[in-house]
Amino acid sequence: MAEQGRAPVARTVLQQCLRARLQVKPAGEASDAEFVQVRPGATDDILPKMVSTLLNLRLSESDSGKMVSVLELPGSLLIVPQATLGGKCKGRAMQYHHNISKEDGLRLYGSFVALCEAELTAVASAASGTQVKHGTYGNRQVLTLDTNGPYTHLMEF
Amino acid sequence: MAEQGRAPVARTVLQQCLRARLQVKPAGEASDAEFVQVRPGATDDILPKMVSTLLNLRLSESDSGKMVSVLELPGSLLIVPQATLGGKCKGRAMQYHHNISKEDGLRLYGSFVALCEAELTAVASAASGTQVKHGTYGNRQVLTLDTNGPYTHLMEF
Repeated sequence: MAEQGRAPVARTVLQQCLRARLQVKPAGEASDAEFVQVRPGATDDILPKMVSTLLNLRLSESDSGKMVSVLELPGSLLIVPQATLGGKCKGRAMQYHHNISKEDGLRLYGSFVALCEAELTAVASAASGTQVKHGTYGNRQVLTLDTNGPYTHLMEF
Repeated sequence: MAEQGRAPVARTVLQQCLRARLQVKPAGEASDAEFVQVRPGATDDILPKMVSTLLNLRLSESDSGKMVSVLELPGSLLIVPQATLGGKCKGRAMQYHHNISKEDGLRLYGSFVALCEAELTAVASAASGTQVKHGTYGNRQVLTLDTNGPYTHLMEF
């Protein structure tokens, strides 16, 4: 997904799941969990493409057997900020020299969450019960994941 | 981790966890879950380096606050084959044209698991209760994961 000729500035790991729970606020349920990390050089410009790609990918099987996206299901979303995804293995340690600053990361993460919320709200009726939940940036949090796959996808932007 | 000048031939996502359970055989408990995918061009040559890197990385905090590897803890390991990690996003679908053949993948996956078992057995006494569990290649299986991070790491070889 990253444009040719430049290194990716954002990395996402998407895990399809039956349920996901993050203990930060009252627990929510989700059908997709996304782990997000952005790098220096990432700007707001990449966010609409990231969100559009992630939410429109046809990764789930509907009841009729057709492949549909999380927007088409519609399903719920749990977004987890994940600084460790930016690590590079050096000897026996992971180094994070290329991670974005906390201030920029926090801002981009907030915009990413807001865009996901707007996209899902636009297609999902209140009756569908879908929701977007997200972890808080920079905090340790307890994640529980139930999958029936598992299906783990890596996407870089 | 991949050598310069060539594309990675193996991709691993490592998730540190308190417990992981995979419903294939009687469930096991693990402190690290590894999602593994190998590509055409991968040969047995890369396996010792992969296993050594993954098991010796100091990612866990010991009781005394020192960073230690899963071998040093010692912790348990759950290995999950994960063909979807080899996908490339094309339009609204994931394509898997670059995935390894089932026969080669199965063989390499088996060797990877055997190497992990040998490494962990060499350091962990029977009394420590650590174990290596693994999913079966090519099957859908139900994964449950409990983390206290979460800490998700990507490593390519």
